Amino acid sequence: MENIYAGRIAALRQMMNRNGWDAVVVTGSDPHASEYPASRWKQVEWLTGFTGEAGDVVVTADHAGLWTDSRYFIQAETQLAGTGVELHKTRVPGAVLIPEWLAGRASVVAVDGLCQSCHSINDIRTGICSAAPESGCSIVNVPDLLERLWKDRPAVPSTPVTTLDVECFGGIPRTDKISWLRKWMMIKEIDGVFLTSLDEIAWLLNVRGNDIEYNPLVVSYLLVTQDYVKWFAKKSVFGSTDPDTTDSYSELKADGVEVEDYDAVYFALSSLGSDSKATLFVDYTTLNYHLYSYIHESCFGVKVEAGTSPVILEKAVKTDSEIEFLRQTYVEDGIAVERFLYWLEQEVRERGGVSEWEASERLTAFRAEIPGYRGNSFENISAYGPDAALPHYSTPEHGSAMIRPRGIYLVDSGGQYLTGTTDITRTVPMGDCTPLEKEDYTLVLKGMIALSMAVFPRGTAGCQLDVLARNALWRTKRNFGHGTGHGIGYWLCVHEGPQDIRQNFNSQPLLPGMVTSNEPGLYRAGCHGIRHENIVLCREAGKNDFGDWLEFETLTCCHIETSAVLKELLTPDELAWLNAYNESVYRRISPSLPSSEAMWLREKTQAI
Amino acid sequence: MENIYAGRIAALRQMMNRNGWDAVVVTGSDPHASEYPASRWKQVEWLTGFTGEAGDVVVTADHAGLWTDSRYFIQAETQLAGTGVELHKTRVPGAVLIPEWLAGRASVVAVDGLCQSCHSINDIRTGICSAAPESGCSIVNVPDLLERLWKDRPAVPSTPVTTLDVECFGGIPRTDKISWLRKWMMIKEIDGVFLTSLDEIAWLLNVRGNDIEYNPLVVSYLLVTQDYVKWFAKKSVFGSTDPDTTDSYSELKADGVEVEDYDAVYFALSSLGSDSKATLFVDYTTLNYHLYSYIHESCFGVKVEAGTSPVILEKAVKTDSEIEFLRQTYVEDGIAVERFLYWLEQEVRERGGVSEWEASERLTAFRAEIPGYRGNSFENISAYGPDAALPHYSTPEHGSAMIRPRGIYLVDSGGQYLTGTTDITRTVPMGDCTPLEKEDYTLVLKGMIALSMAVFPRGTAGCQLDVLARNALWRTKRNFGHGTGHGIGYWLCVHEGPQDIRQNFNSQPLLPGMVTSNEPGLYRAGCHGIRHENIVLCREAGKNDFGDWLEFETLTCCHIETSAVLKELLTPDELAWLNAYNESVYRRISPSLPSSEAMWLREKTQAI
Repeated sequence: MENIYAGRIAALRQMMNRNGWDAVVVTGSDPHASEYPASRWKQVEWLTGFTGEAGDVVVTADHAGLWTDSRYFIQAETQLAGTGVELHKTRVPGAVLIPEWLAGRASVVAVDGLCQSCHSINDIRTGICSAAPESGCSIVNVPDLLERLWKDRPAVPSTPVTTLDVECFGGIPRTDKISWLRKWMMIKEIDGVFLTSLDEIAWLLNVRGNDIEYNPLVVSYLLVTQDYVKWFAKKSVFGSTDPDTTDSYSELKADGVEVEDYDAVYFALSSLGSDSKATLFVDYTTLNYHLYSYIHESCFGVKVEAGTSPVILEKAVKTDSEIEFLRQTYVEDGIAVERFLYWLEQEVRERGGVSEWEASERLTAFRAEIPGYRGNSFENISAYGPDAALPHYSTPEHGSAMIRPRGIYLVDSGGQYLTGTTDITRTVPMGDCTPLEKEDYTLVLKGMIALSMAVFPRGTAGCQLDVLARNALWRTKRNFGHGTGHGIGYWLCVHEGPQDIRQNFNSQPLLPGMVTSNEPGLYRAGCHGIRHENIVLCREAGKNDFGDWLEFETLTCCHIETSAVLKELLTPDELAWLNAYNESVYRRISPSLPSSEAMWLREKTQAI
Repeated sequence: MENIYAGRIAALRQMMNRNGWDAVVVTGSDPHASEYPASRWKQVEWLTGFTGEAGDVVVTADHAGLWTDSRYFIQAETQLAGTGVELHKTRVPGAVLIPEWLAGRASVVAVDGLCQSCHSINDIRTGICSAAPESGCSIVNVPDLLERLWKDRPAVPSTPVTTLDVECFGGIPRTDKISWLRKWMMIKEIDGVFLTSLDEIAWLLNVRGNDIEYNPLVVSYLLVTQDYVKWFAKKSVFGSTDPDTTDSYSELKADGVEVEDYDAVYFALSSLGSDSKATLFVDYTTLNYHLYSYIHESCFGVKVEAGTSPVILEKAVKTDSEIEFLRQTYVEDGIAVERFLYWLEQEVRERGGVSEWEASERLTAFRAEIPGYRGNSFENISAYGPDAALPHYSTPEHGSAMIRPRGIYLVDSGGQYLTGTTDITRTVPMGDCTPLEKEDYTLVLKGMIALSMAVFPRGTAGCQLDVLARNALWRTKRNFGHGTGHGIGYWLCVHEGPQDIRQNFNSQPLLPGMVTSNEPGLYRAGCHGIRHENIVLCREAGKNDFGDWLEFETLTCCHIETSAVLKELLTPDELAWLNAYNESVYRRISPSLPSSEAMWLREKTQAI
């Protein structure tokens, strides 16, 4: 039997042949540059079977390749077997990226402009035109290119929409947010702001949906002028009989938000400059190439002003009320994780083993008991032993490894709640650990503690602190290949900008109110993986002659196992932090636990 | 009596009036963007009396202002008294820089284009034109603008030239360096490289001069093509009867370097594109505005390609032979500093006090005894008590403070040798110290040690390590306002790029062979100042599964006083480093010391 994906690629090649395209580039993103796309836009998966979160595909007459990074090398090799698609490794020394690879191999390249940023198209154009005369190279933009081959392709999602009750669950009323944006527009002399990123739209309108797994978003565009706010989403949402959705619709209308069909965005954009010349603000990092071309070519009278959307920073700085809710949410999330850890220890002891999948399901069940729970914030990573050496391990439903009463189990998970988004990783020694496991465990912990204890002057960016989380590892020539910290939304995406804590230069200073993860790790292929992740809030720490100081407050409330800690590797400061943290977890969480679990936690949080 | 500087400014205003200029901008730099200019280009000092190393002046009909940063605020207030020149503070919150200040205040601005970079002129043009219609604003370039007022202005310097004996003192033959540059030009398709930075020229030609205090440079330009190497310097140098200079001239000629007059550079540049179109590479960071305009306006047939000069990086990575010489040079320099510290302690004890100036002179005398000594690499900073709170304190010849047998003395100094350039700061407790002095002393030391012990993967830039030198201070909300580390030349400038270790983003990775300072500090105005400075060499530290590792080797060889160390603030690692370092200093230096001094050093380097 022919491989299903090989068949699809063959069909694509026929289409290419008919149209005179040398190559087709297919991305794993959607028209909004979302990190997790809805199923309609899982085009790489449909074409090749690869399910990793990052990957782009190029098909030419005689080659099909998937470009992805080290997180997915093993998964890609497995999933691509038999498809005829070859793996191209990115983020490795000497990596040849798609634009460079295409140079000399293709002159006419077709893309689905809806699912590509204008930056990536520019790179591809530069690549193919470097090897061909200007007249002989071209990008052919074919929106929904794969639709002709993908018969049962899912539609644009249209799940029910809810609005936020900011008085009950924190945040700022949408009318205030819209006023803030309009004031910004006046200062910048901008007539219209076109928002294309789904979490920015959800934040600005105080709406949530369920269009995308793990992310409470609504697939839509938003156009804000001084005269109107137009929200372009699948109208069927609002024809719904769902009472919440109907109420949401009325509420939005009352606040001056007009709802139009998702596809009406084109007409609205072209009408913008029809009376008098209008300046339209867009953010090229999330504006797709198709709309980019449309605005530049078909919207006469529109002058484009591109930049970084002001919503990103405003969204990242949590309000005082959001922060209050977050503190409580992280305690409740911690209770669920503690109950899970207790359950896991008991079950593994009694039954001799629990599968990674069962553990994952049980953890979700504990979270689901929390009032306000609205799902997980990403796919649980439930990984035992060598599986944990894959930082982005995907636990299989069938045949997952058994967690045994020895070695190390790693669980990275998070919840979506009305009052915030959580993310936590705990590395759990299930019994005896080897000296190397303990050393790795302790050195990673030293990094997490060093960053937790950091004090820094206002203006400091995450990349200037990153080494604090790595120094203990680096000193022994160990390292991890992912970032140390990412921003986290408020009942929004578990990954958000603009701040982060990583090696890459990102000049965005950490500001009071920003919520960021602190998650150093260490991975030994075939052996074990370690990651300690707490979520920290940046807050003010006073001023003096030397500056205006900031520090972190740890929001995550779940004990850190001390049985694998090599105490002699910790400085007195680090040891004091660890003991104080565990004590504070016990104090905050034990009152909500049944007595047997509270006793267990008392034991786990004893000072060492 | 009228203030001499007020009189000069009045004369300048008359010139402005005659010419219709609204403002004149005067900089403290030279035509080569040198950090230390020769006396001919100390125009800010001539006009205002301000002798700080960084400062620009603007004169309008009704205002004269000096723009400088926090290092020079106190000095500027003192030196500008009575001149009518007002201090404008830079690098402070809300600082208004010259371009912004000029906006609306001046439309026609005269500059000495020889002493301004094209970037700074661009900024000024943007400033003045933002407040005036395009036609109504202009920059008037007047080379040597002040010459008409400055009757006894020094000439372009023309000190004797010597060439390096690379076989005896390390380095690469000039013919190899020229071949390397020509190969680079071929790859980049460049016909001519125009070098304007004096240390790049000195490095490429293996020549040294004495045109600028502390920097062994020759004021000159260099033009390299595949056919010729033309060096534009004051020809009188080569009419000299100095036998070294005559030999240098012959040697350069034999290696194909043609020497032409400093001012012949204009003709050479305009001839470049006369036969066929030529691409000329320039570095805008050191090309002055006058030459920039000349090349763009008068050199037909020349196409400019601007970028970062490849010489900068090549010069920063020391060769194996240079590194060998550096190790020895730093030991010899350390002996001089140890002998000085011994002398100082004895003298202060016996006489009850020694002036900062006398101490500085004595230190220079000890250095001068070293074979190969060619002067100091910068002006000694010899500062006692509150004087040390000024990071760039300039010790006055007359009336300097007395160093007493209590409190803290700081000495920052360096030598120029045939075999390298040194830089070292030692902070010396002269007797009892206060608890705060000890705490500051120890926390700064923790930072210096943390950076010394760093291990990091290849690709790491200095700004990613900087926090290691600050973290101990930051944790207690203390900080210092200067960079942690600067590159250092090889018998060249004591400050060189492209690498550094500081908060500012500089993406240049630290490479094996780079030599950089490690000098955290702490300054309490009116009380005391602390700085610990060692010079470190970046070197390879092996490869493993986690990466390709680099580390620092400390070149500086001079003990660190332990009497002010609060041992309980050091981690075991830090303490071990300190004791091992002092022991290694004793081992390497004591054999070269008289026995009384060796015994003293034994005492000073006892493990704590």
